[in-house]
Amino acid sequence: LSLSSGQFGLVYQIFSITIATMGAGFIFFVMAQQNLSPKYRPAMVVSALVVAVACYHYFRIFNSWNESYALNAGAYVATAVPFNDAYRYADWILTVPLLLVETVAVLALASNIASGMIWRLAVAAFVMIATGYPGEISGDTTTRLIWGTISTIPFIYIVYTLFVELGKSLDRQPPRVQVLTRNLRLLLFASWGFYPIAYLLPVILGGGSLSANGVVGLQVGYSIADILAKVGFGTLIYFIALEKTAHDR
Amino acid sequence: LSLSSGQFGLVYQIFSITIATMGAGFIFFVMAQQNLSPKYRPAMVVSALVVAVACYHYFRIFNSWNESYALNAGAYVATAVPFNDAYRYADWILTVPLLLVETVAVLALASNIASGMIWRLAVAAFVMIATGYPGEISGDTTTRLIWGTISTIPFIYIVYTLFVELGKSLDRQPPRVQVLTRNLRLLLFASWGFYPIAYLLPVILGGGSLSANGVVGLQVGYSIADILAKVGFGTLIYFIALEKTAHDR
Ligand SMILES: CC1=C(/C=C/C(C)=C/C=C/C(C)=C/C=O)C(C)(C)CCC1
Ligand SMILES: CC1=C(/C=C/C(C)=C/C=C/C(C)=C/C=O)C(C)(C)CCC1
Repeated sequence: LSLSSGQFGLVYQIFSITIATMGAGFIFFVMAQQNLSPKYRPAMVVSALVVAVACYHYFRIFNSWNESYALNAGAYVATAVPFNDAYRYADWILTVPLLLVETVAVLALASNIASGMIWRLAVAAFVMIATGYPGEISGDTTTRLIWGTISTIPFIYIVYTLFVELGKSLDRQPPRVQVLTRNLRLLLFASWGFYPIAYLLPVILGGGSLSANGVVGLQVGYSIADILAKVGFGTLIYFIALEKTAHDR
Repeated sequence: LSLSSGQFGLVYQIFSITIATMGAGFIFFVMAQQNLSPKYRPAMVVSALVVAVACYHYFRIFNSWNESYALNAGAYVATAVPFNDAYRYADWILTVPLLLVETVAVLALASNIASGMIWRLAVAAFVMIATGYPGEISGDTTTRLIWGTISTIPFIYIVYTLFVELGKSLDRQPPRVQVLTRNLRLLLFASWGFYPIAYLLPVILGGGSLSANGVVGLQVGYSIADILAKVGFGTLIYFIALEKTAHDR
């Protein structure tokens, strides 16, 4: 596989800016939690964990990317060292359950209901990620589509559950918080929806996961999705918590 | 392209001192915010984010600089690895919107007016940076001048808006703060004005972006501008907030 220097550079730069964004997100969540009343601070701790884990993984991903291509007569040609997709899936295994806990906390459900829901969602997330991985690392389009389809079943369960529950929780919120919670639901929907689309890009753009456009589209797509789902989502939850802090006073 | 060891070393040292300054700025903003009343702390959080992101990018810029020249018979000769200008533009894409938020916060406008202004300024900043980049990476002087001119249009809009609004905000400030706000306006003007000048240096010093003097002038100019616009600006805002904290008591 061979990438043009523009293609290689685009992914390179996106990875670097994602590292910076995750790092900045970490500092923001740690520093900004002091503005919130203590009961909303755990959500910021969770966000800080999510982006710290992601920052670490993007350093690894960035280095893996650099090792897996070498400049050769003006083009970036795949080396013998394959790009390590596993970093992403390792990242999701750690961060998705944390994001689910954080999202369920926003719902302000009774704690026994909340904990049952978290467990069901966490199991679904585990299945979603574990079944997505064999498709991700396969060079074969059919294999990719089969595992992708299996992975989509728990995905739909998660997104559907959160969408419905976030909708129901609106009545439990003060008016200004309702607007923000609606935005949160939209952001959740848009950012999580980005992942399966990115996963399909190698198929859509043609040539499967072995085409240059497919590889570039996939990495750029996942990176944008991660920024939205982690830093964007955490920031919106911060503003919700800030509003609630003001409202509680 | 070949640099004398003095030229190479000057840029090398400027990058290193910029890393140190950004890191020191980060520690200062984090530690000093406790002296401010809570409502002024978010400005320090924003400053901390800006310099942290810049510190990261200057590490990358420093490494890129070292990789793009190799010592050869007493001179530093460009290697096959080009210097990565994109780090700077990636840095600005993240930090300029943050600085705009911080500056508009200083204006102490009603929140609906402020948020409209932030959006307009952020869009202008995005256009300014996105149109500057193709000129920056072009080896051709005409291309550099054309993109630079386009980029200057949103630049003027931003600087003009902030200058006028900072002027208007003076009446809303206690007397001692007025002096500092005037200095802030001056610093904003001087530091932001540095960027297009640095951009033009390869043209002014002759030989376009492919002359040794041009390259050195550009990198030194941008680094000084970044120190002023990020650490200097944040520090001045700290003193304004300190004065306001005293005044509010
Ligand atoms: C549906 C689907 C997928 C969904 C992945 C998702 C939704 C990941 C979400 C990750 C998040 C939110 C990380 C944040 O920290 C895969 C595994 C790509 C495989 C293809 C099918
Ligand atoms: C007008 C102009 C430019 C202006 C750049 C500016 C004004 C950058 C400001 C950056 C800041 C303030 C960063 C701080 O974090 C470019 C893009 C060099 C291209 C040439 C024309």
